[in-house]
Amino acid sequence: MKLWGGRFTAETDKAVEAFTASIHFDRRMYAEDICGSIVHAEMLAKENIITQTDKKDIIEGLKKIYRLIEKDEFEFSDAAEDIHMSVEQKLTDMIGEGGKRLHTGRSRNDQVALDTHLYVRKAVTRTGKLLLRLQNSLLEAAKRYEDVIMPGYTHLQRAQPILFSHHMMAYFAMLSRDFKYLSLTRDLADMMPLGAGALAGTTWPLDQAYVAKRLKFTTLYENSLDAVSDRDYIIAFLEFGAQVMMHLSRLSEEYVLWSSAEFAFIELDDSHCTGSSIMPQKKNPDICELVRGKTGRFYGHLMALLTVMKGLPLAYNKDMQEDKEGLFDAVDNLHFALSVYADMIDKMTVCKDRMRAVLEGDFSDATDMADYLVRQGLPFREAHAVTGHAVRYCIEHGKVLKDLSLDELRTWSPVFSDDVYEALQIESCVRGRKTYSGTAPESVSRQCADGERLLRSEEAQISAWEDMDRHVYAILK
Amino acid sequence: MKLWGGRFTAETDKAVEAFTASIHFDRRMYAEDICGSIVHAEMLAKENIITQTDKKDIIEGLKKIYRLIEKDEFEFSDAAEDIHMSVEQKLTDMIGEGGKRLHTGRSRNDQVALDTHLYVRKAVTRTGKLLLRLQNSLLEAAKRYEDVIMPGYTHLQRAQPILFSHHMMAYFAMLSRDFKYLSLTRDLADMMPLGAGALAGTTWPLDQAYVAKRLKFTTLYENSLDAVSDRDYIIAFLEFGAQVMMHLSRLSEEYVLWSSAEFAFIELDDSHCTGSSIMPQKKNPDICELVRGKTGRFYGHLMALLTVMKGLPLAYNKDMQEDKEGLFDAVDNLHFALSVYADMIDKMTVCKDRMRAVLEGDFSDATDMADYLVRQGLPFREAHAVTGHAVRYCIEHGKVLKDLSLDELRTWSPVFSDDVYEALQIESCVRGRKTYSGTAPESVSRQCADGERLLRSEEAQISAWEDMDRHVYAILK
Amino acid sequence: MKLWGGRFTAETDKAVEAFTASIHFDRRMYAEDICGSIVHAEMLAKENIITQTDKKDIIEGLKKIYRLIEKDEFEFSDAAEDIHMSVEQKLTDMIGEGGKRLHTGRSRNDQVALDTHLYVRKAVTRTGKLLLRLQNSLLEAAKRYEDVIMPGYTHLQRAQPILFSHHMMAYFAMLSRDFKYLSLTRDLADMMPLGAGALAGTTWPLDQAYVAKRLKFTTLYENSLDAVSDRDYIIAFLEFGAQVMMHLSRLSEEYVLWSSAEFAFIELDDSHCTGSSIMPQKKNPDICELVRGKTGRFYGHLMALLTVMKGLPLAYNKDMQEDKEGLFDAVDNLHFALSVYADMIDKMTVCKDRMRAVLEGDFSDATDMADYLVRQGLPFREAHAVTGHAVRYCIEHGKVLKDLSLDELRTWSPVFSDDVYEALQIESCVRGRKTYSGTAPESVSRQCADGERLLRSEEAQISAWEDMDRHVYAILK
Amino acid sequence: MKLWGGRFTAETDKAVEAFTASIHFDRRMYAEDICGSIVHAEMLAKENIITQTDKKDIIEGLKKIYRLIEKDEFEFSDAAEDIHMSVEQKLTDMIGEGGKRLHTGRSRNDQVALDTHLYVRKAVTRTGKLLLRLQNSLLEAAKRYEDVIMPGYTHLQRAQPILFSHHMMAYFAMLSRDFKYLSLTRDLADMMPLGAGALAGTTWPLDQAYVAKRLKFTTLYENSLDAVSDRDYIIAFLEFGAQVMMHLSRLSEEYVLWSSAEFAFIELDDSHCTGSSIMPQKKNPDICELVRGKTGRFYGHLMALLTVMKGLPLAYNKDMQEDKEGLFDAVDNLHFALSVYADMIDKMTVCKDRMRAVLEGDFSDATDMADYLVRQGLPFREAHAVTGHAVRYCIEHGKVLKDLSLDELRTWSPVFSDDVYEALQIESCVRGRKTYSGTAPESVSRQCADGERLLRSEEAQISAWEDMDRHVYAILK
Repeated sequence: MKLWGGRFTAETDKAVEAFTASIHFDRRMYAEDICGSIVHAEMLAKENIITQTDKKDIIEGLKKIYRLIEKDEFEFSDAAEDIHMSVEQKLTDMIGEGGKRLHTGRSRNDQVALDTHLYVRKAVTRTGKLLLRLQNSLLEAAKRYEDVIMPGYTHLQRAQPILFSHHMMAYFAMLSRDFKYLSLTRDLADMMPLGAGALAGTTWPLDQAYVAKRLKFTTLYENSLDAVSDRDYIIAFLEFGAQVMMHLSRLSEEYVLWSSAEFAFIELDDSHCTGSSIMPQKKNPDICELVRGKTGRFYGHLMALLTVMKGLPLAYNKDMQEDKEGLFDAVDNLHFALSVYADMIDKMTVCKDRMRAVLEGDFSDATDMADYLVRQGLPFREAHAVTGHAVRYCIEHGKVLKDLSLDELRTWSPVFSDDVYEALQIESCVRGRKTYSGTAPESVSRQCADGERLLRSEEAQISAWEDMDRHVYAILK
Repeated sequence: MKLWGGRFTAETDKAVEAFTASIHFDRRMYAEDICGSIVHAEMLAKENIITQTDKKDIIEGLKKIYRLIEKDEFEFSDAAEDIHMSVEQKLTDMIGEGGKRLHTGRSRNDQVALDTHLYVRKAVTRTGKLLLRLQNSLLEAAKRYEDVIMPGYTHLQRAQPILFSHHMMAYFAMLSRDFKYLSLTRDLADMMPLGAGALAGTTWPLDQAYVAKRLKFTTLYENSLDAVSDRDYIIAFLEFGAQVMMHLSRLSEEYVLWSSAEFAFIELDDSHCTGSSIMPQKKNPDICELVRGKTGRFYGHLMALLTVMKGLPLAYNKDMQEDKEGLFDAVDNLHFALSVYADMIDKMTVCKDRMRAVLEGDFSDATDMADYLVRQGLPFREAHAVTGHAVRYCIEHGKVLKDLSLDELRTWSPVFSDDVYEALQIESCVRGRKTYSGTAPESVSRQCADGERLLRSEEAQISAWEDMDRHVYAILK
Repeated sequence: MKLWGGRFTAETDKAVEAFTASIHFDRRMYAEDICGSIVHAEMLAKENIITQTDKKDIIEGLKKIYRLIEKDEFEFSDAAEDIHMSVEQKLTDMIGEGGKRLHTGRSRNDQVALDTHLYVRKAVTRTGKLLLRLQNSLLEAAKRYEDVIMPGYTHLQRAQPILFSHHMMAYFAMLSRDFKYLSLTRDLADMMPLGAGALAGTTWPLDQAYVAKRLKFTTLYENSLDAVSDRDYIIAFLEFGAQVMMHLSRLSEEYVLWSSAEFAFIELDDSHCTGSSIMPQKKNPDICELVRGKTGRFYGHLMALLTVMKGLPLAYNKDMQEDKEGLFDAVDNLHFALSVYADMIDKMTVCKDRMRAVLEGDFSDATDMADYLVRQGLPFREAHAVTGHAVRYCIEHGKVLKDLSLDELRTWSPVFSDDVYEALQIESCVRGRKTYSGTAPESVSRQCADGERLLRSEEAQISAWEDMDRHVYAILK
Repeated sequence: MKLWGGRFTAETDKAVEAFTASIHFDRRMYAEDICGSIVHAEMLAKENIITQTDKKDIIEGLKKIYRLIEKDEFEFSDAAEDIHMSVEQKLTDMIGEGGKRLHTGRSRNDQVALDTHLYVRKAVTRTGKLLLRLQNSLLEAAKRYEDVIMPGYTHLQRAQPILFSHHMMAYFAMLSRDFKYLSLTRDLADMMPLGAGALAGTTWPLDQAYVAKRLKFTTLYENSLDAVSDRDYIIAFLEFGAQVMMHLSRLSEEYVLWSSAEFAFIELDDSHCTGSSIMPQKKNPDICELVRGKTGRFYGHLMALLTVMKGLPLAYNKDMQEDKEGLFDAVDNLHFALSVYADMIDKMTVCKDRMRAVLEGDFSDATDMADYLVRQGLPFREAHAVTGHAVRYCIEHGKVLKDLSLDELRTWSPVFSDDVYEALQIESCVRGRKTYSGTAPESVSRQCADGERLLRSEEAQISAWEDMDRHVYAILK
C-alpha cells in the first residue's frame, strides 16, 4: 500500500514501480537514515510533538532494524520504493501507530538530503585517511630513494637529470591540492537540511539546532528550497574524485612506462601484477592500467550529474534520484585506487642502476653545457646554439657530450676549458638546481620536511572529522 | 590457482584480485561465452586440433554449465577473475584434460571480444524492437488524435497552432534517425574477432570462416591488433543511447510541462505517476523526470569510454576492462525507458478542450495576419510591423487579434477587409500550412502514411536480426 | 629564425608552425607576460645576473611593447609561436643583446605557467565582483518583492505557496557556495611557479621570494616538476564555471517557464528579449535560453581539459597548450552571463496578481489541510489520506479545498471544524512555515539579513584581491 | 533597426545584442546562406510569388554580396545579429523593396537549418578526402616497410613479434570504420529543411522538391517541427570527430613512445618537431602531443552540444545557437590533424635495426615456445607453465630463451628437441601467425590488397559527393 495513495484511482504499474524505485542502491545509506530518524524522534519528543513513549518505541525499533540490516536479515522490496519507506514501514509493522508519527515535520525530500549529507561526510573522512596514506607512501619512497637520480622528461624526451625523490614529491604536491578540495567538499556537505520539509519549511516547531548539534553539523541550510534541491556537495565530491583520478592516471601512465622493457625503471611487486593466459613471459601492470582506465568512470559520473542538474527548476525533481549511483561507485573506486596505490608504492622496486646507465648515455646534460657557456660569458641564445650543434655532432658520431674532446668542443666555441667535464657530471647537474622547488638534494629535502609538516596538519584535520563521525554513529548503539 | 602463474614468484594480493576481477559484471555474458566456446570446440575438432571425444565432452560440459547458470546453481568467485576463466575451470573440473584443450588457438583477448560482440548484437535486436514499439505508439497517438489542435511553441512562447499529431510525428522522425544509428552500431558489432589470438593471430590452422558462419557474423576482422583493441562498436552503442535519451529527454520535458497545472495539456495515467509522502494533492510525472534525468547517465557512460580509450597504445590494455559496466547499464536503462514510454503514450489522456481554449486566447494567429496582409500586397517586413503593432495594442487592451474591429485594424493598414477574420480562424491557420513537412491535416496524414511504411521496413530488418540471434542461441540447446 | 634551431637540420613545416602556434589566443596574456618579465628582470639585476643597464633597457623596452599592444600597434606573427617569443623577439629587435639575457634562469614552461596564474587570478577578481553583483540583484529583488506570494513547485507540480523572496534567496544561497569555490580557485592559482625552469629548477641563484612578493603571490610552488605541469587551478576555474552555469541554467529554466503565456509570472524587460522575423507577436526570453544553452559550453571545456590531462606523464607535454582557449572562452561567457543576469533581474517585472490568482485556484494548501488534521489529532498518514480523497473529490467536481462545505469535509473526517478555512488561507500557509530555512516572512527576512552580512564579507574579500591586482598591474605603468 | 520591432516598446540592450549576436561566428556560412537564398528566389519566382524582375535583382545582388565577402570588403556588425540578417539588409540597401520579398515563405529557423546542412555536407566531403589521404599514407607505409618486424605489445609489455605493416594496417582499419560514420553523418545532413517556416510549415505554395534538387538534397524533412529543431547531424559530426581523434590519439601515443630514447623505433622528420628554448638537445614530437591533446577538445564539443539539446522542448529555442562554434572548431582541427598526420607518416623514418635488436633480446617468442610444446603433445596450460618457468630462469640468469641449451630446457620438460630453436626464430614467430587477420606476411599482404580495394570504393564515394558540392556552389558563379 502506497503512503500517498489517497488522490489516486489506479495502482502504480509494476514496471514503473521497479523503474522509479531506488531501494536497490539507496539501501546503502541505512545507517545514515536510521541515525537521522533517531535524532528526529528525540527532537520531536523534546518539542512535545510526540510522546516520550512514542520516542522510546521508535528509537528501540530503529536500533533493532539497524541490527537486522547489519546482520543481513532485513528484507527489502521494490514496493517500498526507497530506504526511507522501507525503514518506516518496518517500524510501523513493529511498533504500530507510533511508527507513523515519526515522519511528522519532515518529508522524504529533506530526509534523503540529510542521509546523503551524512553519507558524503563519512565518505570524506575515509577518503581523507586513504589520501593521507598514499601521500605518506610517496613521502616515504622519496626518503627511501633519496640518492637515486633518474632522467627527467618533457615531451617524453629526456630533458634533465632529476632526483627520483623529486618526482615522487611532485605527486605528493598534487595530492596536497586534492586535500584542499576534499576540505571544501566536506564544508559543502556539512550543512543540515532537515526542517526544509517538502520545499517550504514546515509548520511544526522543530528544533533544527538540536538536530544539527546531535549530528555534528556546523551550519544549517539558510533556505529550504535550496536545502532540498542542492546537489553541489555531491558534484564537489565527484570533481574531487575526477581530479584525484586525473593525478593517479598520470602516475599510472608513468608506472606503465617505467615497467616496460624499454624503460625498466621500476619493478612492481608480483602481487600487484597479473600474467597472460597465452603468453607465459608476461607480467602486466594491470593495477596501473585499471586505475588509469577508471579515470573515465569518474569523468563520466561528474558529467552525468552535471547533466542531470542542468536546467532543473526548483525544488525537488525526480531527476535528482540519479545523484547516488555515481556517487557510490566513485566512493568505492576511489577508496580502492588510493589504498592499492599506497601498497604498490610501498612494495615496488626502483632500478637505480638502470636509471644511472640511461643517464650516462644521453643528452640530459645539454642544458648544463649551455649554462656553463653562459657562465663563460656567452649570451644564452648563443650558448644554446653552440650546444645544439654539439648535440647534432654527437648524434651523427654516436657520442655523448662528455665524450667530446676539448678540441672538438672548441670548434664550436673557444671558451670551453677543462672544467666543462665537471659541469657535465650527472651529480653536478642535479646539485646545481637548488632553486626553492628545484631538484637539488637540499631542495628536495626541504620539500620532504615541509611535506611531513603538512601531513601532520592533515592528520589533525582528519582526526577531528573522525571524532565527529564517531559521535554521530554512536547514536546507533 | 592462476592459469598464468609459471613466471611469478609471489601470489596476487587479494585486494588486487578483487579490484581487477570482472566476474561480478561480465558473468552477464555467460550465454555468449558458452556459445562461442561450443563453436570454437566444433571448429577445433573439424580441423583435427582436438579429438571428436574431446569435442563431445566439451560441448556436453558447456551445455551443462549453461543450464546450471540459467538455474542460478553456478557458483562464481573472484579468484576466477572473469566469466571466461569461471567457465573453463568448471569445465576442467567436470571433464578433466579435455577442458584445458578448449583454449587452444584463442586468447582471452579475442574471447572477450567475441563475447561482447555477440552481446551487443543481441542487445541491438532487443533495442530495435523496443524502439519500433515506441515509434508505433507515437504513430498510433498521432492517428488517434488527428483532429486535436494545440499551440506550437518556439522559445516556449506560443508561436503558431499545430496539429497534436504533427508534434507526435516530430518525435517519430527523431527515432527514425536513431534507427539508422542502431543499424550502424550493429554493422560495427557484426565483425568476428576470433583468430586474433592475444594480438598477432595464432599459429593454429583455425577455420575462422566456419566460426563466423555458425555465429552469423557477416565479416571477419581484417586485422588482429584491431580485433582485440577495437571498442568502436561499444562507443557506437553508447552514442546511439545518448541520442535516443537526448530525444526522450526532450519529450520528457514536454510531458512534464504539459502535466503542469499551467499547461494542463495531457493527463498521464495514474499508473505512471507517483504521489508525495507529504503533499496529498500531488501527482508527479516521475517517469518523465526520471527518463530526463537518466540522460545524464548515458552522457556519462559515453564520456567514460571515450576517456578510457584516449591515448591507449595497441593492442589490449587492462583499461579496456572498463568498457562493460557502462554498456550493461545503458542497455538496461534504455530498454526500460523505451518500453515505459510506449506504455505511457498508449495510456495518456490528451486534453483537447484545454488546448483549444488556450489557442482562442492567444496570438498564435499573428503570422497568419501578417501572411494575410502580404496576400493583400504588403511587403512581408511591413506586414510583420503592422501585425506587431496590432499585437501590442491588444496586449494593452486585453484583447486578441480576432477581437479587433475592422476600424481598429484599419488604423494600422487600409488593406484589411472582412475576410481577415476567416484567416484568423485556428483551423485556417493549420490548414494553410500544407508544405510537405507542414502541419496541415493532409501533410500530417502523409507523414503518418510514410511512417507506417517505414515501420514495416524497420520491422523486416529487426525480424532478420532476430532470426540470426535465434540460430546463434540455438547452439546452447 | 627559431630560438631552438641548433640541433635541427630541416625547417619546421609551415602548416605545423601554424598548427602548433598559440599566438592567436595566448596574446591575450600580454599584460601578464610583460609584468612577469619586468619583475624577472628586476630580480636578475638584484642578483647581479644581469647589469643595471640591461635591466633598465629591458624594462623600458617592455613597457614600450606594452603600450604598443594596448594601442593595437603591435604585429603578431605565427612564426613567433607564442606571446612569450613575440615579446622577447621584439625586445631584442629594440634593445639588442640585453633582450636575449632576459630569458636567463627561466624557461617557457615556467614562464607560461606564471602568466596563466596571473591571468586566472585577475579573472577571479573580476568574476568575484560580477558574482557579487548578481547576488546583490537577487537580494534586492527579494527585498523589493517581500510581500509577493507564488506557488512553490516540486516535480513542476504546484506544491505549497512560498514567498517570491524565498525563491530568489535560494539562488542567492547557491551563488554563495559558488563564491567558496571561487576562493579555492584563487588559492590554487595563487602559487608562484617561476624558478622551476624547464622542469628541474635552474642553476641560477634566483630570488623567487622577491618575485612572489612583487607579484603578490602568497606561496611558492614546492616542486618544480609540479609547477610546470600543474593545471589544477584552470580545472578548478572550469569546475567553478560549470557550477555557476548549472545554477544559472536552473534560474534560466524558471525564467523561461515564467515568461511563458501559461505561467505569466514575470515579464522580462523588452531590452532583454528579442522578436521573431516571422511571428510578429513573439517576445522571446533569448538571454535566458542562451545562458541555459551556454551551460553546455562550460561542461565541454571542463571535460576537454580533464581529458587532456588524463594519463600525461610529468612534466610539460605539448598537450597542455590546449588549456587556454577553453579558459578564455569560459571567462568571457561567465562575465557576460553574470552581468546580464544582474541587469535582467533589476529590470524584470513580477506579476504579483497573476501568482495570487493561480494560488487561489489550486491545491497548494493541501499540506496545510493535512497538518490541520494532525493538529486535530489524526496520525499524519491518515490526515494525508483524508486530504488526498478531498482533492480527488474537488478535481471531479471542479472545486478547490476552500470551496468545500463543512458537511462535505466531514464526510471524510469528523474532526473538521470552522477554523479549517483559516488554515487554508494562502497567508496562513506561508506564515506557518517558520522553520529556520522556511518560507515564513520572518524566516525570509532573516535570510536576507544574513545575506547582507555575507555580501559585506565577500566584498571585503574581493576588495583585498583588487588591491593586490592593482599593485601587480601598476608594474606596467 | 530590428526586423521584428513592431511589438516592442524598448530597444534591445547593447550588451544583450552582443551576447545574442552570432554574426562573429556564423558569417563563416556566407556561401551557404547566399546559395540557399538564390535558389529560394528562383523558386519563389517559378511559383509566381515574386516577379521575374525581383528574382533577377535579388540574384544579382546576392552574387555581388558574395563577391564582396570573398574579397573581404563586406562590413559585418553586431546589430545585424547574424549572417542571414546581414545579407538581407545589405541586399535591401542595394536593391530596395525586392530585397524584403526574399524572406517570403521562409523563416530564420529553417534558413539557418538549411545553411548548416549545406555547411556540414561540404565539410564532410573535405573530411572524407583527408581521411582517405591519411588511410593512403598508412597503406603506403605498410607496403614500404613490409619486411620490418617489431615487437607487438599488450599492456605495454612486449608480447609477440609482429610486422610493422600489420601495426599500420590496424589504424587503417579504424579509419575505415570512421568512414562509415562519416557516411552516416552525411546521410543525416542530406535532408532539406526549407519549407518548415518558423515551425509549422508555411502558407506559401513552395516547391520544396525544386529547392532540394537544385541543392542536391536526397530527401526532404518529413516534419517541420523536426526540421527546425534537429541537430542530430551536427552531433553525428562531433561523434565522428571524437572517434577519429580517439583513434589518432592512440597513434599519437605510440609515436610519442616510439620517438622516445627508450623506444627509438621511429624518427619523425625535423619539420614535424620543435625544440626547446632551454634544452639544446630536445627534439619534441609536438604534433603528436598536440593531436593527442586536441582529443579533449572534441570530447568537449560533443559533450557541450549533447548538454545543450538535453531537455529542450520543440521547436526552436535560442539554446540551439550554441551548435555552431564547436562544429566549426571541430572541422578546422580535424582537417589539420588528418592532413598533418598524413605528411608526418610520409616523411618519418622507421628504425628497422633497432626494432630487430630489441626483439633479439626479449621474450616475445615465449608463446611460440609454448605452442611448440603443444605440438610435442603437452596440454596448453602445461606448456604455458613450462615456458613461464623457463622465462623466470632466464630473467634470473640474464638470458633469453634462445640462449638456453637443450639440457637446460629438458630440466622443465623432456619433449624439447633441437627444432625448438627454429621455432624461436623471430621470422618463424611472425610467419606462423597466418590466420586471416594475423601478422604473417601473407595475411598482411591480403590486408593491404583489401585496403586498396576499399580505398577505391571510398574514393568513388567522395568523388560523387564532390560532384554534388560542385553543382551546388556553382550557383554562386
